Amino acid sequence: MSIYISKNMSEMKPSAIREFFKYAADPAVISMAAGNPAPDSLPVEAIRRLTSEIMEKEIDGALRYSISEGHPPLRDSLKAYMREQNAFDENRDELLVLSGSQQCMDLACRVLCDAGDTIICEDPSFIGSINSFRSWGVNVVGVPIESDGIDIEQLERALKTQQRVRFLYLIPNFQNPTGYTMSAKKRAECYRLAKQYGVLILEDDPYGDLRFSGEYVPPIKTLDKDGIVMYARSFSKVLAPGVRVGYLCFPKELAGPLTVAKQCADVHTGMVSQLICHKFLTEEDMAAHLRNISEIYRRKCDVMLAELDKLPAEKISFSRPQGGLFVWATLKDGRDAGEFTLRLVKEKKVAAVPGSAFLAQPGTSPNFRMTYATPTREQIVKGIAAIGEML
Amino acid sequence: MSIYISKNMSEMKPSAIREFFKYAADPAVISMAAGNPAPDSLPVEAIRRLTSEIMEKEIDGALRYSISEGHPPLRDSLKAYMREQNAFDENRDELLVLSGSQQCMDLACRVLCDAGDTIICEDPSFIGSINSFRSWGVNVVGVPIESDGIDIEQLERALKTQQRVRFLYLIPNFQNPTGYTMSAKKRAECYRLAKQYGVLILEDDPYGDLRFSGEYVPPIKTLDKDGIVMYARSFSKVLAPGVRVGYLCFPKELAGPLTVAKQCADVHTGMVSQLICHKFLTEEDMAAHLRNISEIYRRKCDVMLAELDKLPAEKISFSRPQGGLFVWATLKDGRDAGEFTLRLVKEKKVAAVPGSAFLAQPGTSPNFRMTYATPTREQIVKGIAAIGEML
Repeated sequence: MSIYISKNMSEMKPSAIREFFKYAADPAVISMAAGNPAPDSLPVEAIRRLTSEIMEKEIDGALRYSISEGHPPLRDSLKAYMREQNAFDENRDELLVLSGSQQCMDLACRVLCDAGDTIICEDPSFIGSINSFRSWGVNVVGVPIESDGIDIEQLERALKTQQRVRFLYLIPNFQNPTGYTMSAKKRAECYRLAKQYGVLILEDDPYGDLRFSGEYVPPIKTLDKDGIVMYARSFSKVLAPGVRVGYLCFPKELAGPLTVAKQCADVHTGMVSQLICHKFLTEEDMAAHLRNISEIYRRKCDVMLAELDKLPAEKISFSRPQGGLFVWATLKDGRDAGEFTLRLVKEKKVAAVPGSAFLAQPGTSPNFRMTYATPTREQIVKGIAAIGEML
Repeated sequence: MSIYISKNMSEMKPSAIREFFKYAADPAVISMAAGNPAPDSLPVEAIRRLTSEIMEKEIDGALRYSISEGHPPLRDSLKAYMREQNAFDENRDELLVLSGSQQCMDLACRVLCDAGDTIICEDPSFIGSINSFRSWGVNVVGVPIESDGIDIEQLERALKTQQRVRFLYLIPNFQNPTGYTMSAKKRAECYRLAKQYGVLILEDDPYGDLRFSGEYVPPIKTLDKDGIVMYARSFSKVLAPGVRVGYLCFPKELAGPLTVAKQCADVHTGMVSQLICHKFLTEEDMAAHLRNISEIYRRKCDVMLAELDKLPAEKISFSRPQGGLFVWATLKDGRDAGEFTLRLVKEKKVAAVPGSAFLAQPGTSPNFRMTYATPTREQIVKGIAAIGEML
């Protein structure tokens, strides 16, 4: 019997860079590909200690069913944490604990979009989110991103011409894949346009706490006097991705549908994970931890940029991130980076992700994404040298 | 700005028994309502010990990203475990680790159904699954359940008349809410009809390991020579619901779309939880544990049935489950149990869930569901006595 697959799922295309990933999986490869946090940024000792306390004192809570909205003490401390950052207004906002920030994207789309609706995003953007949107049959429209954020003129044109735009998906801090940070001015303009055209903003901020240079720029959510911004955060980069805990701050009127969607999706997020996050947030020195891990990223980013500076500027350019995990490189001759990265991984055993993987619509790209988070300093030096040889 | 809510989510109706739940939330109430496992069935000491070992020896794996399909060693041991029970065929089947069995239902529907498609289920059935199906815009058609399982004649009529039926959703063991077990004969007939009419079966089996009387009846999945049965299992009732780990065995050709759906939904299931399940499954004596907890349920069920036997048989009848968590009572005068259970919780502070909550379509029901899992023996005795006074 041939099994019918739903329209939305059957339209999901396999990744165009499968061959690249086949080679990148070789353990001998220096991987500057996957967006994993730096191994030494994981607070292993603290998590070990906190988990042991949970098992001693709170195991009942860890093992039983909880409510879909999230473990109430964790939810309360996240609300307080977001309030301190002016990203949560008690009168206007609600907050749910979700199973990683991927689930924030998925449930936002589930609650807000019908098939055929439109989401506007930066182009390129995070492929995990784009795929989740696509899986809802949504039309994903990309607007080019510049080094200070999305192109505002083209964004307005898209808002004017596209039908049934449900939200703008934006990663203002140290964007994935480009590493670009949106300026305060453009954040305000995005907010103004969203309000003017009656669309929501889904602001994805997994890296915001990992700033290691430049000036802090407040999230778009801090401008939200009109109840139009959903703000997604994650413990994946500041604590550990394996816990799969994220959270979403959003206008109160979405609390009902988002809670029902969460209930339908997986009832509630795993309790051991929620308790670990709660204890870490309330009992550890979060500010000191964030300073420490940002410093780890700064040092590794400096190594990568110093090595990249040695390469011929007429052949390659690259972003200089102020935080986060990624550097975005551009082949100056404009050729598609797909073949370049494929040869890099096959011949030099160095993996960087071709830019075409992050496009809103299939196409070519002279860019590729590198992370300094997971390779060692030595691997970064070797990796960039290999790129130099390839150029 | 008024926010547009997706068609599917905006059609989700709030529970008809909200007022009941308002009273049932009172901590002074004896709750025979929620389907939680018995507190003394949770293997607290083992989980404490295993978690401490994970934190000592495998913390790296616990904290990092893993693959969407599930932690490979857990996936392998689950395949072996299912193979032992003839519920997994290496040549035909695949298995994914998911975030609780609710996610099995949700992703099965995501991959198999378009809005407007039909799912046939037992009526009444598990409301969590029905709600998840409804949230995909699916038409849920109920077929009456009898004490030996779904009414086969009416099932065939539904299969003949309904359009675009994507799967039958069945809970053959100790069904929620009725406690009924489907006979081997009816399981074979369901399989035959599914094959004949070209529809899949989603067999939900969270309670199958909790048999405390009667003869073992093999899952429908053991009959699956044609690759048409998806078989959902859970650690919620045999280990702990707070870990949120379930798993789905299914025909191989669904592996691609289900993995993509999982990736879009939440990337992968929390790693601490997966590691706890893996160690429990491979290092503890699962068979002995299941015997122990089934014995706990048997004793508590016996208390409830003995108390129910004291009530006037002309006023109330009830199911005699061979396992699982639930007894299904029927008011013999045929009146809707909604008012009865509301008065029971308001006046007697005893909570049992009115049968209307479990119907495929809104309606009335002379039934109500009680669990013996969470109340103490004393509470069961008091609770049933209160029902007797109310009759």
